[in-house]
Amino acid sequence: MKLPYLLTTLCTAVGVASSPIKITHANDTVNRPLVHLTPHEGWMNDPNGLWYDAKEELWHVYYQYNPNDTVWGLPLYWGHSTSKNLTLWDDVGVAIEPMANNSGAYSGCMVIDYSNTTGFFGEDVSPEQRVVAIWTYNTPESETQYLSYSLDGGYSFRSYSGNPVLENNSTQFRDPKVMWHEETQKWIMVVAKAQQFKIGIYTSDDLKEWTPVSDFTRGGYLGYQYECPGLVKLPVEGNTSAGNGSWVLFVSINPGSPQGGSSTQYFIGDFNGTHFIPTYENTNSIDSGKDYYALQTFFNSPDNQTYGIAWASNWQYSAFVPTDPWRSSMSLVRKFVLEEFQANPETKLLNIKSTPILDYDALGCAHPSNGKNLFITVGNPLQFSLVQGLFDFNISFSVNGSAFGGHEFADLSLYLRGGENKDEYLRIGFGANAATFFIDRGHTAVNWVHENPFFTDKMSVNNQPLTISNNSTISTYSVRGIVDRNILELYFNNGSQVSTNTFFFTGGNFIGSIDMAVGKDNVFNVTEFSLKQLSTGSH
Amino acid sequence: MKLPYLLTTLCTAVGVASSPIKITHANDTVNRPLVHLTPHEGWMNDPNGLWYDAKEELWHVYYQYNPNDTVWGLPLYWGHSTSKNLTLWDDVGVAIEPMANNSGAYSGCMVIDYSNTTGFFGEDVSPEQRVVAIWTYNTPESETQYLSYSLDGGYSFRSYSGNPVLENNSTQFRDPKVMWHEETQKWIMVVAKAQQFKIGIYTSDDLKEWTPVSDFTRGGYLGYQYECPGLVKLPVEGNTSAGNGSWVLFVSINPGSPQGGSSTQYFIGDFNGTHFIPTYENTNSIDSGKDYYALQTFFNSPDNQTYGIAWASNWQYSAFVPTDPWRSSMSLVRKFVLEEFQANPETKLLNIKSTPILDYDALGCAHPSNGKNLFITVGNPLQFSLVQGLFDFNISFSVNGSAFGGHEFADLSLYLRGGENKDEYLRIGFGANAATFFIDRGHTAVNWVHENPFFTDKMSVNNQPLTISNNSTISTYSVRGIVDRNILELYFNNGSQVSTNTFFFTGGNFIGSIDMAVGKDNVFNVTEFSLKQLSTGSH
Repeated sequence: MKLPYLLTTLCTAVGVASSPIKITHANDTVNRPLVHLTPHEGWMNDPNGLWYDAKEELWHVYYQYNPNDTVWGLPLYWGHSTSKNLTLWDDVGVAIEPMANNSGAYSGCMVIDYSNTTGFFGEDVSPEQRVVAIWTYNTPESETQYLSYSLDGGYSFRSYSGNPVLENNSTQFRDPKVMWHEETQKWIMVVAKAQQFKIGIYTSDDLKEWTPVSDFTRGGYLGYQYECPGLVKLPVEGNTSAGNGSWVLFVSINPGSPQGGSSTQYFIGDFNGTHFIPTYENTNSIDSGKDYYALQTFFNSPDNQTYGIAWASNWQYSAFVPTDPWRSSMSLVRKFVLEEFQANPETKLLNIKSTPILDYDALGCAHPSNGKNLFITVGNPLQFSLVQGLFDFNISFSVNGSAFGGHEFADLSLYLRGGENKDEYLRIGFGANAATFFIDRGHTAVNWVHENPFFTDKMSVNNQPLTISNNSTISTYSVRGIVDRNILELYFNNGSQVSTNTFFFTGGNFIGSIDMAVGKDNVFNVTEFSLKQLSTGSH
Repeated sequence: MKLPYLLTTLCTAVGVASSPIKITHANDTVNRPLVHLTPHEGWMNDPNGLWYDAKEELWHVYYQYNPNDTVWGLPLYWGHSTSKNLTLWDDVGVAIEPMANNSGAYSGCMVIDYSNTTGFFGEDVSPEQRVVAIWTYNTPESETQYLSYSLDGGYSFRSYSGNPVLENNSTQFRDPKVMWHEETQKWIMVVAKAQQFKIGIYTSDDLKEWTPVSDFTRGGYLGYQYECPGLVKLPVEGNTSAGNGSWVLFVSINPGSPQGGSSTQYFIGDFNGTHFIPTYENTNSIDSGKDYYALQTFFNSPDNQTYGIAWASNWQYSAFVPTDPWRSSMSLVRKFVLEEFQANPETKLLNIKSTPILDYDALGCAHPSNGKNLFITVGNPLQFSLVQGLFDFNISFSVNGSAFGGHEFADLSLYLRGGENKDEYLRIGFGANAATFFIDRGHTAVNWVHENPFFTDKMSVNNQPLTISNNSTISTYSVRGIVDRNILELYFNNGSQVSTNTFFFTGGNFIGSIDMAVGKDNVFNVTEFSLKQLSTGSH
């Protein structure tokens, strides 16, 4: 029996030159993520106002923020974090405040008003920093859209004297996302008429006066209400007959998503300046996990690509997750493109491909490790240690569809085990019978996980193979996983599907090793497994 | 403190006069359902050929059947069961056989050819019994549509000499469902062009020659493929401006449903004899649970209402569930109507309301028990015993939305515990914070439940209240649950949503008691709880 080339170079964490501002509280005992944005303390939900400052080369993320508690509550603010690399985040304080204690500065977006269409900016404000926030002011009486603008590069904001700029005689009219539409030279807003299951589309020349032009009505899954719409044009990657690009309309729903609670769906179509016209009527999940809501994309980027971030939690249980003194993290920033996806042997579908952004130059670990053609048999798992809470791995494998019978459960599983207590583990893998990936986050000593009836343990992702042999016997797949203390992001087949899920082990029991095991011999060939231990240097 | 009226009359199981043919195998040790159709032995999947014989007053259910194994495999047959009451089932043997060992008599339907459009029937066959099966013949080369007809009331079938009657040069063309369209005096077939995400619509005068008239393309969730379509007109119940009725197109998807694996969605619209035109483009789940696939409706019924049945399993794990010597059961038969559903304060949606059919006259237990205004506090659950594996319960309750804070998890839970081992339990209930129902089937000593990564433990159902008080503080809800050994069907708010899930306790540990508990005082008022112990008499 020939032994395969095994992993030999497992790197250890090394320090980095510049470390972000991170304050560890005395009671910060559980697993605060390192490269996923969290609030210093208090409650966070939707990402807001995402923009990139080309002058300072700085990314800005704002978010729904309650500094007074670790659950949602009024008054609600916009918190604010910045990053040079989309990997390490600096908490830079509150950006927008509500005007009364029973009100909220609800979700919204930021645009760069380069040509000063609003008249808010003098020559002293660089065009790249002329940011205007368009957001929902929530009071007990109504939800209306407000403008605020910044003269200091996005740190402090002044309220426009003519607010509100848009009202609809409704308490359920929120989450404006605005873009500049080059073809019509107009500002375009999409905004949720939440409980009518409509996304209103409005146009403007100056962000102050808005004209309603159409509604997108009742598509996909409805749930209880629509929230947090987004409209972007994405390029189509790869050799394809699908054209240069298509428009994508994002719509979040909560509660009542098919996975349970909150999730983000999208539609693909055309946008003519006034109407979004879906190419087909089907809906799509941008992330199959339970923790990916209220996706928003950045206004501006250095490479004119589309980047976005989502709230990595779920309203079903977000108020109860065992973290302190903060609650919730964001997802990693992802780059989105369209690709043609072989949904089954007969049909290709346009599909969003997601790529996580993680800047290795900002992190410790320059020497990733790599192994090929790993040999694993039933009862003889491979074990990899020295992973320490923050790491990035890739696995590529093939499945021999003729090597198991209908009674034989044939899985390839990775058991990501706690470093201090190996009985706590995440199990992720592939079930060959169902040709489906799975995630199980239920193996923990944290009682809350078992007792909270909404914290679903088992998720799955059906994805078609990267390649299939001529006789359909051998299929290949790949998964990239990024683990950051209490959150796992899985990118299947180069990001054609994604599943984002938080998990909760006992405090300090960071994942410390991986066991790779199979349920049946000769079904799986792990052609490559690589592992990068990462460190922010400050922990 | 005034003690509430408590349950006083818990009935005990009593025998019934006529018992169905049920053979208990020596190794039939686990919880075979009593009123959910199961195959005597072997493997079962999709329901097929549902029809009602008005002459014999007999319901016929056929199903995908592998008598040679407890997993799916070729050759695949149509099994056959009948019932006088949709509650107790008689296994009456195989109805349709495939023509070769590497082929299958795949899913299809049955119609009654009252006026002998096919010419298959002589005067000796009563018009009510002139049944023709339209089904898919699957070979390694193709899937084509076949006719078989019965001269003995649906027990044995002859193959039409002109088969196939419809082909599409495809290996993925299956699951025909045919109805008689009165307005156009045509037979109408819907059939899945599975991997094109299309439902083909065909018309015919004689079931033998079919004309393609339209395709329904890419609606709702796509998953890997479309299967088992159905097209029916349902009445709209209640005082409504929504008209007398609407057409509903059912489409099953597998794998890749948003809940994981297989599920059934539906669309509401109009059908003009050739085209199905959705009123809106949104999709709907007919059942939020993990075990409700391949729904089919009956051809004919004594009251001209629409009744249907689904396969109560999921392709993700159906081959591995711990039952022997059979695998899978059907759901209960349900009656379907449309109703206007208050999806949120602003919008009513047309929605399918499902009502389970269970004939108490065919079962033991004439004396249901009932309690009102039950008093439950934290740490003091109410306990109800003497339930024995098959029972029907109703709970109505109100929720005081102002009686708990954001940090307080306020649930009303029913713990349905094993009679022999109380550590095995189902937990079902309502979480007031998320205003969502939940189901947890993970508390069992059966290792398979924990080890199979696709057997999702926790499901949830978001449903709007039946009533809301003027100041929005008090909301009322109801749930009906039917437990039958290893399957639980939950009907929320009179069936506006449903969740069907199998569960697996150790053999013989039927559910024997219910604990009702709350997580926070003064939030819930259980206005009514009733419980009917049921018995088939033969066990």
